Amino acid sequence: MKFGIVIFPSKDLQDFANSYRKRYDPHYALITPHLTLLNAFEAPEEEAGIFAEKLQQIAAHSNPFTLKTTKVSSFHPVNNVIYLKVEPVDELISLHEEINRELNEQKSEYAFVPHITIGQKLSNDEHSDVYGALRMTKVDHEETIDRFHLLYQLENGSWTVYETFHLGKE
Amino acid sequence: MKFGIVIFPSKDLQDFANSYRKRYDPHYALITPHLTLLNAFEAPEEEAGIFAEKLQQIAAHSNPFTLKTTKVSSFHPVNNVIYLKVEPVDELISLHEEINRELNEQKSEYAFVPHITIGQKLSNDEHSDVYGALRMTKVDHEETIDRFHLLYQLENGSWTVYETFHLGKE
Repeated sequence: MKFGIVIFPSKDLQDFANSYRKRYDPHYALITPHLTLLNAFEAPEEEAGIFAEKLQQIAAHSNPFTLKTTKVSSFHPVNNVIYLKVEPVDELISLHEEINRELNEQKSEYAFVPHITIGQKLSNDEHSDVYGALRMTKVDHEETIDRFHLLYQLENGSWTVYETFHLGKE
Repeated sequence: MKFGIVIFPSKDLQDFANSYRKRYDPHYALITPHLTLLNAFEAPEEEAGIFAEKLQQIAAHSNPFTLKTTKVSSFHPVNNVIYLKVEPVDELISLHEEINRELNEQKSEYAFVPHITIGQKLSNDEHSDVYGALRMTKVDHEETIDRFHLLYQLENGSWTVYETFHLGKE
């Protein structure tokens, strides 16, 4: 079974992201807008409880933080992914690092760039059109994040939430 | 903002339900397969925390229970909804009643018939075709339910999980 760990931002920010995802993200119908804390990984269904326990411990000694977006950015030429750039504040970086250390045996080959995807799997031409139109857009938004979620993927590709974890709560 | 309260069954049962929902349920892409504990209701976003607190208390003195499906059934002629019938065990009925009492000011006009929808918004002809084909299907499935979720709806109709509640845990 595939697991993933994400933050869902507020309804406002999700609605904003969806206004782009609807057109530019083929994952639009599979999961609501999110910031990925740990990329999807394969593990037996029975381990969900073990992951939840580890994540509960990590959450308990982590702290809520301010999620701040400022602009639209892109992973091109590595990937034709367009995203809302999220400020890499210390709390978010530590949260990612600890989850990665505790749950990810493979370790990631990418540096952690916190983001909320608004477009992906675009052709080079599409990417350059869309990114050209959006790169100057200001996205000044701030909100408090006090939770994250462990998810698993169904056979049709959609994601179900297994559990919520509260930052800074036993 | 629209809130809802649901149980997501195991991946196996969700995959099974999706094999029908894919063809027969226009909500297929908006939410993964679920058992509704309280129908969608309108409330200000700020009240999410108050609902979560009430649900946490209800969950703490409720108990995990066995979700058992036996057959495919239908709400026709009231609604052309086809569903997996879920046995109305005491724990599930009490959980619904308490949530309804604490959170639902309008009260429901329907009796609570625990179910997992696999088809809806079908024309009368479609309904009679699909239900005719499925009504004799045996759906013998049992699993333990130890959690439920508070969700809210985005502008595009899809649902995001706000929080998980564990049955029988403080």
